[in-house]
Amino acid sequence: MKPEIAGSESPMLGDLIVGRIDELAAISETEKHLTRIFLTAQHRAAADLLLSWMSEAGMRAHLDAIGNVCGRYEGERSGLPCLMLGSHYDTVRDAGKWDGPLGLITAICCVAELHRRGRRLPFAVEVAGFADEEGVRFSSTLLGSRAVAGTFDESVLNTRDKAGLTMREALQKFGLDPDHIGAAARARRELLAYVELHIEQGPVLEAENLPVGVVTAISGATRLVAALQGMAGHAGTVPMGLRRDALAGAAESILAIESYCAARPGLVGTVGHILAEPGATNVIPGRASFTMDIRAAGDTGRQAAVAELIKQIEAIAQRRNLAPAITVTHENRTVACADWLKAQIADAVAKEGYRILELPSGAGHDGMAMIDITDVAMLFVRCRGGISHHPDEHADSADVETGARVLLRVIDNFQPRRDTQT
Amino acid sequence: MKPEIAGSESPMLGDLIVGRIDELAAISETEKHLTRIFLTAQHRAAADLLLSWMSEAGMRAHLDAIGNVCGRYEGERSGLPCLMLGSHYDTVRDAGKWDGPLGLITAICCVAELHRRGRRLPFAVEVAGFADEEGVRFSSTLLGSRAVAGTFDESVLNTRDKAGLTMREALQKFGLDPDHIGAAARARRELLAYVELHIEQGPVLEAENLPVGVVTAISGATRLVAALQGMAGHAGTVPMGLRRDALAGAAESILAIESYCAARPGLVGTVGHILAEPGATNVIPGRASFTMDIRAAGDTGRQAAVAELIKQIEAIAQRRNLAPAITVTHENRTVACADWLKAQIADAVAKEGYRILELPSGAGHDGMAMIDITDVAMLFVRCRGGISHHPDEHADSADVETGARVLLRVIDNFQPRRDTQT
Repeated sequence: MKPEIAGSESPMLGDLIVGRIDELAAISETEKHLTRIFLTAQHRAAADLLLSWMSEAGMRAHLDAIGNVCGRYEGERSGLPCLMLGSHYDTVRDAGKWDGPLGLITAICCVAELHRRGRRLPFAVEVAGFADEEGVRFSSTLLGSRAVAGTFDESVLNTRDKAGLTMREALQKFGLDPDHIGAAARARRELLAYVELHIEQGPVLEAENLPVGVVTAISGATRLVAALQGMAGHAGTVPMGLRRDALAGAAESILAIESYCAARPGLVGTVGHILAEPGATNVIPGRASFTMDIRAAGDTGRQAAVAELIKQIEAIAQRRNLAPAITVTHENRTVACADWLKAQIADAVAKEGYRILELPSGAGHDGMAMIDITDVAMLFVRCRGGISHHPDEHADSADVETGARVLLRVIDNFQPRRDTQT
Repeated sequence: MKPEIAGSESPMLGDLIVGRIDELAAISETEKHLTRIFLTAQHRAAADLLLSWMSEAGMRAHLDAIGNVCGRYEGERSGLPCLMLGSHYDTVRDAGKWDGPLGLITAICCVAELHRRGRRLPFAVEVAGFADEEGVRFSSTLLGSRAVAGTFDESVLNTRDKAGLTMREALQKFGLDPDHIGAAARARRELLAYVELHIEQGPVLEAENLPVGVVTAISGATRLVAALQGMAGHAGTVPMGLRRDALAGAAESILAIESYCAARPGLVGTVGHILAEPGATNVIPGRASFTMDIRAAGDTGRQAAVAELIKQIEAIAQRRNLAPAITVTHENRTVACADWLKAQIADAVAKEGYRILELPSGAGHDGMAMIDITDVAMLFVRCRGGISHHPDEHADSADVETGARVLLRVIDNFQPRRDTQT
């Protein structure tokens, strides 16, 4: 049995990580808020900074064909399969500085700590800084991790950004060869697992008063658009009983979605956008349309919810003499975190002295692509108020420290999956 | 007792009226749909056509200082106080051809019928074609009838249209003297009553299978804007129980308004416009705002409804941890139709062989201004599907005929209010 890392032996990683978070966040297209989009000059500058930190941590570091920063810390002998850690270094517009960089910088700092101790493990450790998880520029997400998993769809190379530049041209301008993206793909045998640390982006850990939590799955999502067609009319002349008010039907649907999801833990349903037409104060809405975003930690539960909610909305429409049209616009399967990895993360959390809380990830992550090539798991770090994708996004330095210590324990004690395991 | 007009004596007025409705509707700014806005060249051409019809009907006709077409048919001797009939000849954009013109043309045709028979009454009959009821150009309604009632607010002369022209300039261009609008005002002693025939603009008569109805009141209206402030969040990461979803609060409010109004006959409440922000599919709305339009045939009922609905929305907001802000943006008092006039209209309806249905007018009309100078009443004519302010607006020629016959009876049998009446 390997000796465990005792708390007193490790330096304070939290302050180092937070300092680097700030340093990386300074590389932004805009001065007021953080914006760092795929294949821009700032994206390139960020990659260079990350590569330098990787080298400093004793890793062999390079930029791959899609712009991922890749660092490799060899194990007891060179060429061993790796435990891959990572996250992404692109951001949304007016972003927070923690979404992506926290997991990436924490992974680099953990490797740096192993390097400082001269510790070599019976496997390699790799850190992947994925180039584009958010998909802001070309409306296609998980580009970096899909390239690594070998599932990159080359047709997206012809997608154009708002300025009219294709992804192919943007890659060339960045100094990459779009014809060699296949070279970024890794073989299944090279990877033992993919583990990502990330801010929660939700309020659960805060509500549970815990710094970290073990992710059970990356929830699948179904997005739909519903349109209800009624009959517009004069707000003053049509009695309530003769109305076919499309917005009232939408309102009833919104409450049905809310109450159905609230009664089922792990299920969330959101109506984020609504339009009532014609939209005048003194006209009864003849048409209303709204979006639905339904997520659950399991595909079965989500699909059952979607089917039931469609049924309920259709019943509401029928009762109100409205014509419904409901369309699924997007669907993502659920990606379950591997039990054997979850167990090792939970063990590390317990060793740090915290209660083990398991929770699903409602947001999407690079693990959704990595699952095609290896088992995945995630560790969440508490963030303030559940706020993300916003300049107010924040994680406390003490929680960052705890996250890093848990991740370091996971790496240090990592046991590859046994072949007998299923 | 005067002899009543027997049905067999009067010619078919319906076809004449419908023909003139079409002739007037041909005078439009746009070719595809009818648009005839205050003080335009088309407005002037329509006025000239109406004045010619008035002259033809034996009336002394002129354009007053605000652009109203005014016709006077003397009684048994000249200078007697008048029963005033009327409606408006401006339209909304892409209008129907019946809203306004039906009442105006029917009144002219009724006077023409009296003239044809050589009938003089113990009072004068005047027909007013109000120049601007809709208020499309200068965002101020009832301009024509307010000038007649002596309540025209001269400050609106400085209001500008979208092209930057003031109402003062537009009046001058039309050939009118803005400094003499006061000359359009009538003295109370000159008027015995104001009676207006109008399409219903709602579906009640159609649902009741009746061609005409007696209006009880022009409903007052209160318009409000409500904003609910909650907390935006990621659609995937915030569990249902931790949400402060502003749109869900708005949805509950919309249903509360609907059910409160549906339980109280004569009360109508409409949410015509809604906005959820930020408005993205995958973001929980942090803010929602919506309009409310509350109308009732009585001010007390409406004010009680508004107060109760504000209370209900505030309670919904409190329960959902949302911050509400509710503002009244507009308020119109209810204008009751005079009982003595209603009785004479009901009598005429009954004489034509129809059941008497009393109903409020949810839409605004020139009677709202005329009430300041005389007693008012209205007769509604059925329109198809309750549709108005739309090219599909339609009234059947048979119903137009019935409306005209009722109005002719009202004129012919009109008994001025006795001084002893209160």
